[in-house]
Amino acid sequence: MNTDSIRKLLKGVSAGTTSVPEALDVLKHLPYEDLGFAKIDTHRDLRTGFPEVVYCEGKTIEQITGLVRSLPSGGFLMGTRADAGVYDAVKAVRSDTVYHESARIILVGEGREKRSEKAILVVSAGTSDQPVAEEAAVTAEAMGNAVERLYDVGVAGIHRLLDHSDKLTLANVLVVVAGMEGALASIVGGLVDRPVIAVPTSVGYGASFHGLSALLTMLNSCAPGVAVVNIDNGFGAGYMASVINRTCEAP
Amino acid sequence: MNTDSIRKLLKGVSAGTTSVPEALDVLKHLPYEDLGFAKIDTHRDLRTGFPEVVYCEGKTIEQITGLVRSLPSGGFLMGTRADAGVYDAVKAVRSDTVYHESARIILVGEGREKRSEKAILVVSAGTSDQPVAEEAAVTAEAMGNAVERLYDVGVAGIHRLLDHSDKLTLANVLVVVAGMEGALASIVGGLVDRPVIAVPTSVGYGASFHGLSALLTMLNSCAPGVAVVNIDNGFGAGYMASVINRTCEAP
Amino acid sequence: MNTDSIRKLLKGVSAGTTSVPEALDVLKHLPYEDLGFAKIDTHRDLRTGFPEVVYCEGKTIEQITGLVRSLPSGGFLMGTRADAGVYDAVKAVRSDTVYHESARIILVGEGREKRSEKAILVVSAGTSDQPVAEEAAVTAEAMGNAVERLYDVGVAGIHRLLDHSDKLTLANVLVVVAGMEGALASIVGGLVDRPVIAVPTSVGYGASFHGLSALLTMLNSCAPGVAVVNIDNGFGAGYMASVINRTCEAP
Amino acid sequence: MNTDSIRKLLKGVSAGTTSVPEALDVLKHLPYEDLGFAKIDTHRDLRTGFPEVVYCEGKTIEQITGLVRSLPSGGFLMGTRADAGVYDAVKAVRSDTVYHESARIILVGEGREKRSEKAILVVSAGTSDQPVAEEAAVTAEAMGNAVERLYDVGVAGIHRLLDHSDKLTLANVLVVVAGMEGALASIVGGLVDRPVIAVPTSVGYGASFHGLSALLTMLNSCAPGVAVVNIDNGFGAGYMASVINRTCEAP
Amino acid sequence: MNTDSIRKLLKGVSAGTTSVPEALDVLKHLPYEDLGFAKIDTHRDLRTGFPEVVYCEGKTIEQITGLVRSLPSGGFLMGTRADAGVYDAVKAVRSDTVYHESARIILVGEGREKRSEKAILVVSAGTSDQPVAEEAAVTAEAMGNAVERLYDVGVAGIHRLLDHSDKLTLANVLVVVAGMEGALASIVGGLVDRPVIAVPTSVGYGASFHGLSALLTMLNSCAPGVAVVNIDNGFGAGYMASVINRTCEAP
Amino acid sequence: MNTDSIRKLLKGVSAGTTSVPEALDVLKHLPYEDLGFAKIDTHRDLRTGFPEVVYCEGKTIEQITGLVRSLPSGGFLMGTRADAGVYDAVKAVRSDTVYHESARIILVGEGREKRSEKAILVVSAGTSDQPVAEEAAVTAEAMGNAVERLYDVGVAGIHRLLDHSDKLTLANVLVVVAGMEGALASIVGGLVDRPVIAVPTSVGYGASFHGLSALLTMLNSCAPGVAVVNIDNGFGAGYMASVINRTCEAP
Amino acid sequence: MNTDSIRKLLKGVSAGTTSVPEALDVLKHLPYEDLGFAKIDTHRDLRTGFPEVVYCEGKTIEQITGLVRSLPSGGFLMGTRADAGVYDAVKAVRSDTVYHESARIILVGEGREKRSEKAILVVSAGTSDQPVAEEAAVTAEAMGNAVERLYDVGVAGIHRLLDHSDKLTLANVLVVVAGMEGALASIVGGLVDRPVIAVPTSVGYGASFHGLSALLTMLNSCAPGVAVVNIDNGFGAGYMASVINRTCEAP
Amino acid sequence: MNTDSIRKLLKGVSAGTTSVPEALDVLKHLPYEDLGFAKIDTHRDLRTGFPEVVYCEGKTIEQITGLVRSLPSGGFLMGTRADAGVYDAVKAVRSDTVYHESARIILVGEGREKRSEKAILVVSAGTSDQPVAEEAAVTAEAMGNAVERLYDVGVAGIHRLLDHSDKLTLANVLVVVAGMEGALASIVGGLVDRPVIAVPTSVGYGASFHGLSALLTMLNSCAPGVAVVNIDNGFGAGYMASVINRTCEAP
Repeated sequence: MNTDSIRKLLKGVSAGTTSVPEALDVLKHLPYEDLGFAKIDTHRDLRTGFPEVVYCEGKTIEQITGLVRSLPSGGFLMGTRADAGVYDAVKAVRSDTVYHESARIILVGEGREKRSEKAILVVSAGTSDQPVAEEAAVTAEAMGNAVERLYDVGVAGIHRLLDHSDKLTLANVLVVVAGMEGALASIVGGLVDRPVIAVPTSVGYGASFHGLSALLTMLNSCAPGVAVVNIDNGFGAGYMASVINRTCEAP
Repeated sequence: MNTDSIRKLLKGVSAGTTSVPEALDVLKHLPYEDLGFAKIDTHRDLRTGFPEVVYCEGKTIEQITGLVRSLPSGGFLMGTRADAGVYDAVKAVRSDTVYHESARIILVGEGREKRSEKAILVVSAGTSDQPVAEEAAVTAEAMGNAVERLYDVGVAGIHRLLDHSDKLTLANVLVVVAGMEGALASIVGGLVDRPVIAVPTSVGYGASFHGLSALLTMLNSCAPGVAVVNIDNGFGAGYMASVINRTCEAP
Repeated sequence: MNTDSIRKLLKGVSAGTTSVPEALDVLKHLPYEDLGFAKIDTHRDLRTGFPEVVYCEGKTIEQITGLVRSLPSGGFLMGTRADAGVYDAVKAVRSDTVYHESARIILVGEGREKRSEKAILVVSAGTSDQPVAEEAAVTAEAMGNAVERLYDVGVAGIHRLLDHSDKLTLANVLVVVAGMEGALASIVGGLVDRPVIAVPTSVGYGASFHGLSALLTMLNSCAPGVAVVNIDNGFGAGYMASVINRTCEAP
Repeated sequence: MNTDSIRKLLKGVSAGTTSVPEALDVLKHLPYEDLGFAKIDTHRDLRTGFPEVVYCEGKTIEQITGLVRSLPSGGFLMGTRADAGVYDAVKAVRSDTVYHESARIILVGEGREKRSEKAILVVSAGTSDQPVAEEAAVTAEAMGNAVERLYDVGVAGIHRLLDHSDKLTLANVLVVVAGMEGALASIVGGLVDRPVIAVPTSVGYGASFHGLSALLTMLNSCAPGVAVVNIDNGFGAGYMASVINRTCEAP
Repeated sequence: MNTDSIRKLLKGVSAGTTSVPEALDVLKHLPYEDLGFAKIDTHRDLRTGFPEVVYCEGKTIEQITGLVRSLPSGGFLMGTRADAGVYDAVKAVRSDTVYHESARIILVGEGREKRSEKAILVVSAGTSDQPVAEEAAVTAEAMGNAVERLYDVGVAGIHRLLDHSDKLTLANVLVVVAGMEGALASIVGGLVDRPVIAVPTSVGYGASFHGLSALLTMLNSCAPGVAVVNIDNGFGAGYMASVINRTCEAP
Repeated sequence: MNTDSIRKLLKGVSAGTTSVPEALDVLKHLPYEDLGFAKIDTHRDLRTGFPEVVYCEGKTIEQITGLVRSLPSGGFLMGTRADAGVYDAVKAVRSDTVYHESARIILVGEGREKRSEKAILVVSAGTSDQPVAEEAAVTAEAMGNAVERLYDVGVAGIHRLLDHSDKLTLANVLVVVAGMEGALASIVGGLVDRPVIAVPTSVGYGASFHGLSALLTMLNSCAPGVAVVNIDNGFGAGYMASVINRTCEAP
Repeated sequence: MNTDSIRKLLKGVSAGTTSVPEALDVLKHLPYEDLGFAKIDTHRDLRTGFPEVVYCEGKTIEQITGLVRSLPSGGFLMGTRADAGVYDAVKAVRSDTVYHESARIILVGEGREKRSEKAILVVSAGTSDQPVAEEAAVTAEAMGNAVERLYDVGVAGIHRLLDHSDKLTLANVLVVVAGMEGALASIVGGLVDRPVIAVPTSVGYGASFHGLSALLTMLNSCAPGVAVVNIDNGFGAGYMASVINRTCEAP
Repeated sequence: MNTDSIRKLLKGVSAGTTSVPEALDVLKHLPYEDLGFAKIDTHRDLRTGFPEVVYCEGKTIEQITGLVRSLPSGGFLMGTRADAGVYDAVKAVRSDTVYHESARIILVGEGREKRSEKAILVVSAGTSDQPVAEEAAVTAEAMGNAVERLYDVGVAGIHRLLDHSDKLTLANVLVVVAGMEGALASIVGGLVDRPVIAVPTSVGYGASFHGLSALLTMLNSCAPGVAVVNIDNGFGAGYMASVINRTCEAP
């Protein structure tokens, strides 16, 4: 039931062709979905500027290109966990597709203009953590943020991190990406007074248990001001950082 | 916004004092809660005969007696995980309180008449599993079901179970309660063609890991027709069995 | 030992050619299997209309086609976790084989007529959960049930689910399939008053730990009337729902 | 080595009583601590207005009152996980001590004026989750934020949550507290476009495994814009929300 | 239905008062239980000499003394995990009760004569493992075996074990009890060519995880000829060793 | 240092060419290995008839054929977890190699004559458990035992097991192999009074967690007389059963 | 058999009263224990200066005082995990008993003189980690080492650690004690080039899982030169550090 | 900012062209990095002789050869977890590359002269543990140590280990490598009085859980003087042993 049918009902009441009890009965049984849908539309408007997001892993090329084809003109779609094969297939459908290989992200359609002046800093520990860090960084950029990167500053050589304390203190929000023992999030959390989004990665072997070690480390961070997303969830961290930045810029 | 205010609005439209666009605007912004609440009421009606349920563990005597005092006359309340102290306190408030000690359940108010002719059979493995089995049985009885009990038929002496195959095949729904290795659910599931609700218990020691062993056993049951609830969740199993019975008796 | 041999023995007693002690001795040593077998036959009769079920994963093509060849004429066999290679091989043996690709199920032989008027609703959260949902749906259909599907209604957009509250409230039994955080089962359980069979899936990554996260969520469901089957066990859920439906239709 | 000693050194160089190589040698061996300490001081200034925080659990009354006694006049100290005994002892030392019993928090000294106009909304699922929710709420209030509470809106009755969609959409940052299956965080994350800090609690039994179930659920949230803190860490969530709010108000 | 009623039935057939079809019908519906029960009786006879076993933990004094009172004269009952209170209560009922305090076992009634000449050797690692070792030893003694003890021979001082290689090689069956890292089972398994029953204990702290460490060690024993029972299950090991000994002495 | 060199030393003492202190010094520094080696030889003699065992998984073809080539004439070698490639390569080296494909075992050299009249019964639950069951059976046969097999008697159809109660009660030792919920070991343990060696298998999916479910089930068996080996360790179970049988036949 | 009896045997051979074959026979049957024991004696000599160690937790006062009474005059005994009750009882037996309350260690008898000039530095993160740190420190002191302490330098305020870089770089061996996220070990490991022994503690709550989080962090340390002991095992770390120091001072 | 710029600044002060307050201001804002960097240089000097280490797993051939190309002349680089493909590619770039195939290590550049006279003994349990053992051994050799190997001395045949007690007691530091049940570390720890670095390996199956079993065993070692590194971390153990050796040789 949409606005039109409600209007029609009310006109009937107004015209006297529908009695009040009849109309009341219809309205009482209004399913959630109709008003709900309206609400969601408004909701979605508030989110304008954020791309549609497709998690490509486990989807077929056909499913992905189908989603791309259904994108309205002017639409903006981000595909995460996309390999080169996905990119090639999507590029064939839409020539305005860009591939961020390290981040495994494709962007289809007109990108957003930069919306936020406040920088998001993505910090990562080791070389192998970089794909997850890039996923966070490219996600935040696609959502209109200025993003700085500070990579390869693992805690085994704490001076490398301290050497960039300026970058750390200038950021509005920080994303910290680390595998193995994941201690970087606590260190950074102790050095800054801005929100830190920690991303454990599955980088490591043996007792890293595919990211469990880093995850527990980050959840137990003795520095406050740190919150955690799922293992390898660079997208989630980039999105969370963007939501914080947008919240800060809301009137 | 309740039925009265919607009726008032419609009367305005009918009387011409409220224009259609005005009414439309009000209705478009109808919060979820109003229609939602109506829906829930109906929903609750369908559930008539089921008591209010209060999980007593972790609540203070004051909180529990408060809930009991707020029970409307004619209301029916079931308190689970209730110890003797809870019973005494509630009994002092409402003299029509009954205590099922082994099941750790109190029932306040006028119990339901038996609503279902179809029997629920509660089967349990060891003596120590009995409190959980009783929680299931008393819950199902409180919800208006005829309940049979078949206790102390653990798989180490499979003949004890087979000796009661009549009881097993006559039940409409079965609840199987077992700790330690929890194999009883698979055995029963292989003997009957009725739904089996399996309840792992925390009974055991060492590698039973507080019920994990029985839980995994039941989830991996090689007999189909078995579904599982949380460890020690006798209430949940009795409730699920009651819902199945009621479903079977719905027109 | 079958009925014939017992009759023969009794005739000997009746004719006086076998003494009572001799007959008693034979009967006392009657192995379980004979009476047991009779019992099982009856038991199996009750189950008429349910196909033989073969779990194909881990079986060779030869083993599977061997089972299909041994199917009596008029028999009905369902193979789960069957890939295209299995289908091709079985199709070559029996031309009346149908393949439900998404559900990974083959059906061999004359399908059952629809036996139940009561609908089973299969609800799933994400696109990747669909194969498990289809396994449940096709299983329930093969067992003679009317099945409705409500897919892609994950809790991140709760309105998509609420928009279909009619479908939810009309179902006799519900199967809810979800991976990742598996919250859908609790939500659905809170909206309906019919039995909900929850199926966690291994969809997800990182801290989903191959379905453990969804499994625990569903076992801890705060909504009663929910019971759980093994991770990815669409078959088990479809079977359990069918058993409930059949139970409801038993005289 | 502090500023004074460096100034003295430089004066020596300027006066010619210390040679450049000598001064260089001293400076080259400047330990981290001196500059570091200066930096930290500045850093701490930025944090002005945030109280000193003492985690009382596992500390003796003597240790806690010692810390309170060492608090400078005008200082502000927050003690978390404080029971009534701690409160009594601290109250005896400092009469300007306030006790938030449900939150188990003591506040010593002059509280901060409200610094932020932007509301933090603390949402909780069950009655038993309330102490953790209160810990988050009182923490955020002590840090100068306006805090709204929305309690007892578990997902088993989703309408109770939807009835308060206004509260949800008006909040600047949300803290969602839930035990058992922890699904509330995903639901709320799907309804708002503001940062959601999820706090799993150890409320539950059996397969809730002391909060593990809720923790995994929240980490696997299919709704983006959700990040997670440690089990029962209401303080951490309130602090994180405060940091986000303060970040939004920084020039 | 017992032997008597079957005999009566057959006599009817023999006398012609019961027709063959009538008798056949009765026999066809013979429930499992009757023949099953007969079978079990025989079965139990084979086990003569083994005491009834009662796991006392979690049972009330009343339940335990009830079981003791129902013990037939000449009966023999073993109670495991029995504390001094249990002993006192049982002793008051039956004066022929003996208490093995360290093993936490009570023996009621006339003990068995020693039935086996073949020795069972119980080996334990540390002082704290001794109660579990004693539970195994006293169990095996109560079942009529000669038992040797070799305690306090942990692997940290391997010479203490090797000094007793004679004891090791003379045993017919060995029970090895160890907590912490549980390595003793592998060492003993490598030194003897007799069956080794390994019992992990919950002795330890930290990463011993209540016996999990020792359990895994023993399951992964690189020495063959080792099988494992549950954590702290001294009774189970003593019983298993007794079964092996009895099997060896069966004709 | 062997017997010869010690004799030589003693002869020197006897002849006066070696002083007592000199000889004492030599003997005091006698490394463990010499006496140890002697002991081990004796030890190994006791084990005569048992083949050398090579775990092939993870070894290269070269390593395996090298071990085969070094086998003394008349030697007997068993290779476990051997695939067809291993067999082909070993067969090329030694023509007297036999391959048990389902058991994944190769036997090289002259097999042992049957040494034990007492039967070992290998019971398995599902078709997929058969390779592990065969590994146990072929191992026991290679060690000179008579082996009976009872396959495909899972607990979902308990009658299939009960139909063979004769086989069960005639066995001297039983090996029970089961995956998924692993309940078969408890059932069999409750039916027999002989030692039961339980082997959990990794057969299953989802919450079977690669055999963990069956392992825990078996460790928590409520039937005594059951001990457990590692997941999928058919060899270990066959070996343990053989050791028990041999122990029973030792003079 | 000790040196004396071997000497006697050899003298017999030398004197001709014992034949070479007779002596050979005696020597061939020399049990492990004799030579082994001799070896151990020597071994123990090398360890001179290390106290006997008694783990008091789980031992009765009687057992502990018994061990103390059996201590030879001049002996030195260390009791770990000793509470005040243990101290009082031991003090009553031996007046030369000293109690380190925070470390929960008692020292009985004449302490060792300091044997090593090389310092062991014990670093700890939080106040609650101090008992474990003290256990390590007092253990190392009791074993004759000079010990420095650097407490309360958790990674949330990394400057507190860096301020003491001199202490860090002067230590010969370092023990790092930390609970919660345990990141301190990696940081220290990255700052020094000496061996670091890491001790995870059970300090924390929620997802610290009683020390598991810190344990995994330390095992996955990205800084090399770090090895780990059991959770809360301060004694083990102090002992390991002492062994390294002694090794460094061995000729 | 480096030494040159500080010298320049001081010269300005000395010359009077820079005022003391100006210089003080510059120095006060000296970022960590400059002094830090100097410190690290010194630090690195101390480590002279240790190669740069590259963990090759998960890096592309391009990334690895890039690192090799950037190696200064006279530099020394060690690549761990390097397969033959990595070796071929690096060899093509630098002809002075050596490949230790079993250890999976490449060494590029002029190896270090042996720096330590004190032997490191690497002990391993099974053939499959050898690659990890070799990684430890080659790492220690590359760092200038004399390394002894004692392989294939698993605890199932304890005599094989005891036969080499001389090797054990002569070592300065020991690395013990074992999978499956990992008991070897405890045994060796009980036999020697030198530091033992234990390395669990992922060798095993079933309940070895990819090395978890061996890891827990080693952490719970009842022999003191044992510390543990990550599963399969041969490099870490070799490095730790080298650090201990170097510490022992420091003046």
